[in-house]
Amino acid sequence: MQFHHHGYVSGDPRIQPAAGVGINRPDELPDEVDVLIVGTGPAGMITAAQLSQFPDITTRIVERRPGRLAIGQADGIQARSVETFQAFGFAERIIAEAYRITEMAFWKPDPSDPSRIVRGGRAVDDEMGISEFPHLIVNQARVLDYFAEVMANSPTRMRPDYGYEFQSLEIAGDPNEENQYPVVVTLVHTAGELEGQQRTVRAKYVVGADGARSKVRQSIGCTLAGDQANHAWGVMDVLAVTDFPDIREKCAIQAESGSILLIPREGGHLFRMYVDLGEVGADDHRAVRNTTIEQIIAKANEIMHPYTVEVRNVAWHSVYEVGHRLTDRFDDVLPEQLGNRSPRVFITGDACHTHSAKAGQGMNVSMQDGFNLGWKLGHVLEGRSPEALLSTYSAERQVVAKNLIDFDKEWSTLMAKKPEEFDDPSELEDFYVSTAEFPAGFMTQYAPSMLVGEPVHQDLAAGFPIGKRFKSAPVVRVCDTNPLHLGHQAMADGRWRIYVFADASPAGAPSPVADLAEWLANSPDSPLAATPTGADRDAWFDVKVIYQQDHRTIDINAVPAVFKPEVGPFKLTYLEKVYGVDPKEDIFDVRAIDRSGAIVVVRPDQYVANILPLTATAELAAFFAPILGARKAQTV
Amino acid sequence: MQFHHHGYVSGDPRIQPAAGVGINRPDELPDEVDVLIVGTGPAGMITAAQLSQFPDITTRIVERRPGRLAIGQADGIQARSVETFQAFGFAERIIAEAYRITEMAFWKPDPSDPSRIVRGGRAVDDEMGISEFPHLIVNQARVLDYFAEVMANSPTRMRPDYGYEFQSLEIAGDPNEENQYPVVVTLVHTAGELEGQQRTVRAKYVVGADGARSKVRQSIGCTLAGDQANHAWGVMDVLAVTDFPDIREKCAIQAESGSILLIPREGGHLFRMYVDLGEVGADDHRAVRNTTIEQIIAKANEIMHPYTVEVRNVAWHSVYEVGHRLTDRFDDVLPEQLGNRSPRVFITGDACHTHSAKAGQGMNVSMQDGFNLGWKLGHVLEGRSPEALLSTYSAERQVVAKNLIDFDKEWSTLMAKKPEEFDDPSELEDFYVSTAEFPAGFMTQYAPSMLVGEPVHQDLAAGFPIGKRFKSAPVVRVCDTNPLHLGHQAMADGRWRIYVFADASPAGAPSPVADLAEWLANSPDSPLAATPTGADRDAWFDVKVIYQQDHRTIDINAVPAVFKPEVGPFKLTYLEKVYGVDPKEDIFDVRAIDRSGAIVVVRPDQYVANILPLTATAELAAFFAPILGARKAQTV
Repeated sequence: MQFHHHGYVSGDPRIQPAAGVGINRPDELPDEVDVLIVGTGPAGMITAAQLSQFPDITTRIVERRPGRLAIGQADGIQARSVETFQAFGFAERIIAEAYRITEMAFWKPDPSDPSRIVRGGRAVDDEMGISEFPHLIVNQARVLDYFAEVMANSPTRMRPDYGYEFQSLEIAGDPNEENQYPVVVTLVHTAGELEGQQRTVRAKYVVGADGARSKVRQSIGCTLAGDQANHAWGVMDVLAVTDFPDIREKCAIQAESGSILLIPREGGHLFRMYVDLGEVGADDHRAVRNTTIEQIIAKANEIMHPYTVEVRNVAWHSVYEVGHRLTDRFDDVLPEQLGNRSPRVFITGDACHTHSAKAGQGMNVSMQDGFNLGWKLGHVLEGRSPEALLSTYSAERQVVAKNLIDFDKEWSTLMAKKPEEFDDPSELEDFYVSTAEFPAGFMTQYAPSMLVGEPVHQDLAAGFPIGKRFKSAPVVRVCDTNPLHLGHQAMADGRWRIYVFADASPAGAPSPVADLAEWLANSPDSPLAATPTGADRDAWFDVKVIYQQDHRTIDINAVPAVFKPEVGPFKLTYLEKVYGVDPKEDIFDVRAIDRSGAIVVVRPDQYVANILPLTATAELAAFFAPILGARKAQTV
Repeated sequence: MQFHHHGYVSGDPRIQPAAGVGINRPDELPDEVDVLIVGTGPAGMITAAQLSQFPDITTRIVERRPGRLAIGQADGIQARSVETFQAFGFAERIIAEAYRITEMAFWKPDPSDPSRIVRGGRAVDDEMGISEFPHLIVNQARVLDYFAEVMANSPTRMRPDYGYEFQSLEIAGDPNEENQYPVVVTLVHTAGELEGQQRTVRAKYVVGADGARSKVRQSIGCTLAGDQANHAWGVMDVLAVTDFPDIREKCAIQAESGSILLIPREGGHLFRMYVDLGEVGADDHRAVRNTTIEQIIAKANEIMHPYTVEVRNVAWHSVYEVGHRLTDRFDDVLPEQLGNRSPRVFITGDACHTHSAKAGQGMNVSMQDGFNLGWKLGHVLEGRSPEALLSTYSAERQVVAKNLIDFDKEWSTLMAKKPEEFDDPSELEDFYVSTAEFPAGFMTQYAPSMLVGEPVHQDLAAGFPIGKRFKSAPVVRVCDTNPLHLGHQAMADGRWRIYVFADASPAGAPSPVADLAEWLANSPDSPLAATPTGADRDAWFDVKVIYQQDHRTIDINAVPAVFKPEVGPFKLTYLEKVYGVDPKEDIFDVRAIDRSGAIVVVRPDQYVANILPLTATAELAAFFAPILGARKAQTV
């Protein structure tokens, strides 16, 4: 956490000074905004939290409810999400209050008396050490609270605008000088004195994060396609007394009379049960929704026989009815318009993809939708990048959603199977363990595009697959001798990161690193040359160097200046970008980095964008040229 | 973190429901209070934060300043303090924003040119792994902020009362039914409309945490005795540009022209320097205080030659003048009154002990003063314990302060030595490394008393020395399979803890543990029998069991009920007190616990109070009898 560099900060350093549109931010929703986000679920809130870091962009996020979400909805937090929370600065706090999954138990009918369930096996969660972050369960409401705090503490002092329901939008032709806000949105007040009255807001961009029945999706002519039938689950968050020994462990319970997914929850007592209510045909007309809490509890007790669950308090319950459905595009650009125009309206999260809750994926994939989109909107609106950047959102995320639905179908089918239908009694458990990287959130790999290089030089850093998220590893910071995780130093501040893994020469010696540093700092072709005059030199590109030596042998005074930028009004030297290896776990070994060095380019959303040799300055310039296209045009 | 057990908690679980005096707590300082704390420094604030957890005790903390401390003062946070913060729930957050010391560098004159300094050596901080917590540097203001947050989130909703200066107190005879508030305190308003006006508050107890010039200390006739002369330091918190390579590392710098202690600070840029200004005689009449910041900066540059420090911003500076001084008692009971009356007035922190800032001890020892006193006041005021408990405060803490001053004298003398005076050039570094447990805060060992047993059975758990703080070790929680640190489950909630380390029998088998559990739960001689009717059975005593088995082989249904108490209005079963060993680091091995088992009794302030065999129920009852004296008398 860098602070005090603009002068002494007496209070909480997480509260950034208000800047730009955050100075005297109007409480009332303005008539014109840069970005209007519809819906304060996980996808909407992370998009807002990311955009809140851009001081000159007016983002507002509207919500139909009159206030904060209090209870219910999603609760599974995969390791990739915790990694993301780390970048937003609240991982350690949400970990402290969440339930942590370290094992999962699988219960089956007792072969000697199939009317009784017995524990069939236990699987260690993340046995392979896929991530250094834990797998958590905590109510979605708390995730939203933390994102709201990030927004409130941001330079833009953003807060959700509650009590507005999205009704419709239209795009008023292509934007031009007279039409900076081409998306005309009609909202309706849902609360307060103006309840029922319409309100028009004009926006440069609109993000629909308004759930499975998204009206934003409807307004751009997308439809969810997929299953004919829904599957129904009785869901309950309850406080109970039970003799079931694994009540505080995640369990898949398969009995002759049905199946349950048991999710222990934060706080030591609460748990959630998804009780399978079976397939629901289109002719059901929502009759399944009439299932009462008493019926769900009775069904749960039937399944858990010989154990009993005596529910003492019901915190929340619902009948959850869902099919696997997906839209073919995540923005308003029709297939025939691709390449001719840039998107103005985006949809995210459940508005794009619906599926079962059983794999605990929904909230997580939705947040990655928003993390992918947020910085792109920020860069385009700030003029860092051309509008073409925005087309990568739908292209990248639609594939991820498709993969998710395929995975979830397989998982749900297995979960719904009757015990006697399994070829092997451990089939479910084996599937869970063998596919662990997917539900942990780390299988996403973006294809080559303007943002992701071809894997020409992948072999220089095999442990950082291009297109996948940058997997952290330990290093030692030279200036203060602190051992730490390299990836955890990257905050969700919208910056590109250039990690320079040095060749074997010591700092200060003539070397490819020294030449690269010189080029990065001084060449007009360097991406850093796009950084606005007057801004800190690391305002757009966070350039870090990792030497192969032990930190004690690295002379910080000999390290090239590009790795020690001057920051803030006092032009202080920022020394925290220079690292040595941790001898106990050398990052060059654990991430298979070539000893001749490598440049690893990482996107603001933490995905590896490119890997290049230290000498490949022309390729580095060429990679960033289209990304910085707008900027280059401006500065020429 | 246990929550939801009184019903669903939608918001931040760290915000406890208001209860007792926290319901409609008056904003104005009342005329009568149970405890009046004077001064909102670290000693006062931790005492207040601890007392804030007792819903029925009215504690108020007054402060001369009109508001929160903004800057300056102490900044060294030893590992024991971070361990304490963990118990108050904010360790992970303060770690995230603090500077972390992992090494310390020692600079000396260059033998070949003594006008220049060179790095003599580097010492790893806590090379022996004394604690799993880090050694931090962060401004005292932030420590106070976090304690203020704990207070605000507590059942009593406590907030400091700013703008009151302590003037005097007197004790109006012994308390009796007509005189429940015997300490009459005169305060003066220091701000607002009433500035300058006096105000009387009556209290059951007063805690003076009002610093080195404590008026509370004066009012009870204590004096600080010790050094005739003071030592002066120029202290500055600055933002600067420098070529000194270790500017982000803690350094002891000894040059021919003087010495400096360099303390890097939070945020990546700020640092503090203590520049030695030498001994100051009583005849100095504070002339040294006229030393200007320019003089301090010039002196620093002289010492650091050939390096330069170009100060660009001064956040704070002061001339710090102090001697080693100590009071002979920490309360108002005169030596001749010992045993005849209980104390009513206590002093803590700098009011009792002053010394140099060089060892980074002051704030830490002061907080442990408060942590020692807070729960004792809580227990006496709640009627859990007799007043005799309060006499242990002065007895325990005066010795600690004496040891601190002895240590600090030795350290300061070494730091002040001229390089040529050392027998061995690494003398300073060697002392620093060899005495590491002391400055880390873990050398405190309370002598046997009503609160600390004789070490008769110490050999049953050699790794938990009686009288020292309970050193955590890894275990695995059975109910949710979570690997975690046993000690970190103990919060600063004022409860005694009884850790039952089981014999080798499995849970459920007839065994000494089963017999002990039965006795704890049902015997009228059990300390748990003192727990008030209607309260949860673990309200006063948190009883945990650690089996020798792997968690997977422990049947939670077979574990005795005393380890699975019913809690809250729904009488839910709390399962998080049952542990197995972590096979990678078996707590029985790492803490040398006898395989026949042991009872480890731990005080609310985390100090080991006693170690007994599992069969020693009579001794356990006898140990707690005087501690629960008042309560036993009530219930007979």
